[in-house]
Amino acid sequence: MDYFTESLKLHKKLAWKINTTSKYKLETKDDLSLAYTPWVAAPCKEIAKDKLKVYDYTIKKNTVAVISDWSAVLWLGNIWPEAWLPVMEWKCILFKEFAWINAFPIVLDTQNTEEIIKTIKNIAPTFWWINLEDISAPRCFEIEDRLKKELNIPVFHDDQHWTAIVALAWIINSLKIIWKKKENLKVIINWVWAAWVAIAKLLKLYWIEDIIMVDRIWTIYKWRDWLNTSKEIVSNFTNTACILDPESQKCIKWWLKDSVVWRDLFIWVSAPWVLTKEMVKSMSTDPIIFAMANPTPEIMPNEAKKAWARIIATWRSDFPNQLNNVLVFPWIFAWALKNRVPKITDKMKLSAAKFLADYVKNPTEDNIIPSPLDKNVAKIIAEAIK
Amino acid sequence: MDYFTESLKLHKKLAWKINTTSKYKLETKDDLSLAYTPWVAAPCKEIAKDKLKVYDYTIKKNTVAVISDWSAVLWLGNIWPEAWLPVMEWKCILFKEFAWINAFPIVLDTQNTEEIIKTIKNIAPTFWWINLEDISAPRCFEIEDRLKKELNIPVFHDDQHWTAIVALAWIINSLKIIWKKKENLKVIINWVWAAWVAIAKLLKLYWIEDIIMVDRIWTIYKWRDWLNTSKEIVSNFTNTACILDPESQKCIKWWLKDSVVWRDLFIWVSAPWVLTKEMVKSMSTDPIIFAMANPTPEIMPNEAKKAWARIIATWRSDFPNQLNNVLVFPWIFAWALKNRVPKITDKMKLSAAKFLADYVKNPTEDNIIPSPLDKNVAKIIAEAIK
Repeated sequence: MDYFTESLKLHKKLAWKINTTSKYKLETKDDLSLAYTPWVAAPCKEIAKDKLKVYDYTIKKNTVAVISDWSAVLWLGNIWPEAWLPVMEWKCILFKEFAWINAFPIVLDTQNTEEIIKTIKNIAPTFWWINLEDISAPRCFEIEDRLKKELNIPVFHDDQHWTAIVALAWIINSLKIIWKKKENLKVIINWVWAAWVAIAKLLKLYWIEDIIMVDRIWTIYKWRDWLNTSKEIVSNFTNTACILDPESQKCIKWWLKDSVVWRDLFIWVSAPWVLTKEMVKSMSTDPIIFAMANPTPEIMPNEAKKAWARIIATWRSDFPNQLNNVLVFPWIFAWALKNRVPKITDKMKLSAAKFLADYVKNPTEDNIIPSPLDKNVAKIIAEAIK
Repeated sequence: MDYFTESLKLHKKLAWKINTTSKYKLETKDDLSLAYTPWVAAPCKEIAKDKLKVYDYTIKKNTVAVISDWSAVLWLGNIWPEAWLPVMEWKCILFKEFAWINAFPIVLDTQNTEEIIKTIKNIAPTFWWINLEDISAPRCFEIEDRLKKELNIPVFHDDQHWTAIVALAWIINSLKIIWKKKENLKVIINWVWAAWVAIAKLLKLYWIEDIIMVDRIWTIYKWRDWLNTSKEIVSNFTNTACILDPESQKCIKWWLKDSVVWRDLFIWVSAPWVLTKEMVKSMSTDPIIFAMANPTPEIMPNEAKKAWARIIATWRSDFPNQLNNVLVFPWIFAWALKNRVPKITDKMKLSAAKFLADYVKNPTEDNIIPSPLDKNVAKIIAEAIK
């Protein structure tokens, strides 16, 4: 099957993929009078008196904005905002399909931090929750933090929080298969994406401490040159056991090719085909690989297997082990909405990852985490974070 | 029936009144793979190559943004943006119910002209059409004009265009009932709202030329003091036959109470109860009155009748002669969408008003324009503007 063409056909057929529908039928003049003019004034007046009543009378109660500035869409290059709309649409459909939450996609025609913050604040009154998507680091940290402070509704940068939970669940179960202990695990994370910063933080919370992060050129460590905000954050707790230069007593800068040697776990989103078989072979025994470029991963799973990689995850649902945050985000949202919880703590995230891992009774190389289509996961997540 | 309480009950029950639904069921891993990751990349790449393909593959094809800064909501005072959300929601439902167009409500948390323009430009990529609502004059003119120039999608300020068409249709038929000629009709319009400026312009196009507009204090005429942009616009073609002051040879300023004398048609949105029976009595014979404050009009229709008003319109659907723009806007949108027409010209508007009026075979005092629920109107409007 030519997936590319099939997908185009499907998307053309489904252009109206999100419909706004109403349960209420306007059939008589009385219907119009009560629902719309003049008597729509009743809920307006109630909300004017008490702002919080907006949750009783309007869609704000159950509507999420899925907002992206498409700045972290590496695999597509610097595209138009319009070209990112299909992804945001599906995100909204996943909200609906999995958690019965109404979500609406907004792709922004700006990548300026201040403008993004202003724009989102200006359109916030309609929404119950702002779900940011694919905003590049370190801007995403500032945007999320500022909006959290300046808005009175929950704000989350999707990539940071939900992907990290799924990744940790996946790592927990991988360790069961390869019989390695988390305390000894040597991790290398390539490129400092928001999601990878969040994963590094969550690994650290789970006591996986030997983490090296690498940007486009070198390993990251404290006092290195060319550190931006997100690299500074991770430099505080990664690569702490760096190899010192005998003369300067500072860490030695390594290229990725050298840093990957003897590592157990490799996490990477970058570009297709950049991971060679030789690099995989230089890793520790039974290496675990996240090859997350999309749609073509850094190395194809079968190629990686030939280079003795033991367990491979991609972002693709047509290979085993898809690292898809749809496994957690709809349920966390559904639970938070039901319980009016404005904040998901680190402890909740850790707990969600553990519960998710434990739900798979006998993890194997090709069956590490539950399927995104397994509707029991809702209960597991709710149980985990409550 | 206590409409206020009934309406609150209805709106509470219908809090989720707009649902985002999808026709596509994600049931298998293959569905997920083709629709979402990785193969959602196919439409993304096509749109990245050719921006216009966004209309082939996404909801932009059929999605309208209904956006308000709630600055022209006189009857509610200066409320929260949240308090205007119910009205915007229903507007969206009307789009769907009447014309099968998906519409999504955005209430803005700003009333600053520049910020509104910026915000709307920033969220525009998702939408096929921007429908502005209830933005006060003269800001609405600048906002609409600027957005029209700076965006490549159609932009309309609802209040200006659609209400004017319905009002003109209504006036055309009223004249048939009271046997007055349009050339002799003396009109007074109170307060310079965006919709009233648009009505004045359309009346003028229809050769109804004797129009006086009054702001909160005085009649408007050229060279008067305290003219803002919208008042300057109307001063060019209204009150041209003003009574001159013998000494200064300039127009005399009149209060509303004096200006209303001997007028045939009175159009007003202001506050409940401000139109007295005495003022109605001072008008010409068989006066026509638009009393548009909502939900309580300037004068109740039965009171106005007691003062010999002949025909009365309100914004309420529980009285006869509701001046509701739902009668035209869904059909104009549906037609423009189908034919990819980005601009509705004055000629189209005039034609729509005439066709709408002619559709009522024997207009009477209580049956002047078609019911908003009459689905034949779609054809009439399409015929009129094509």
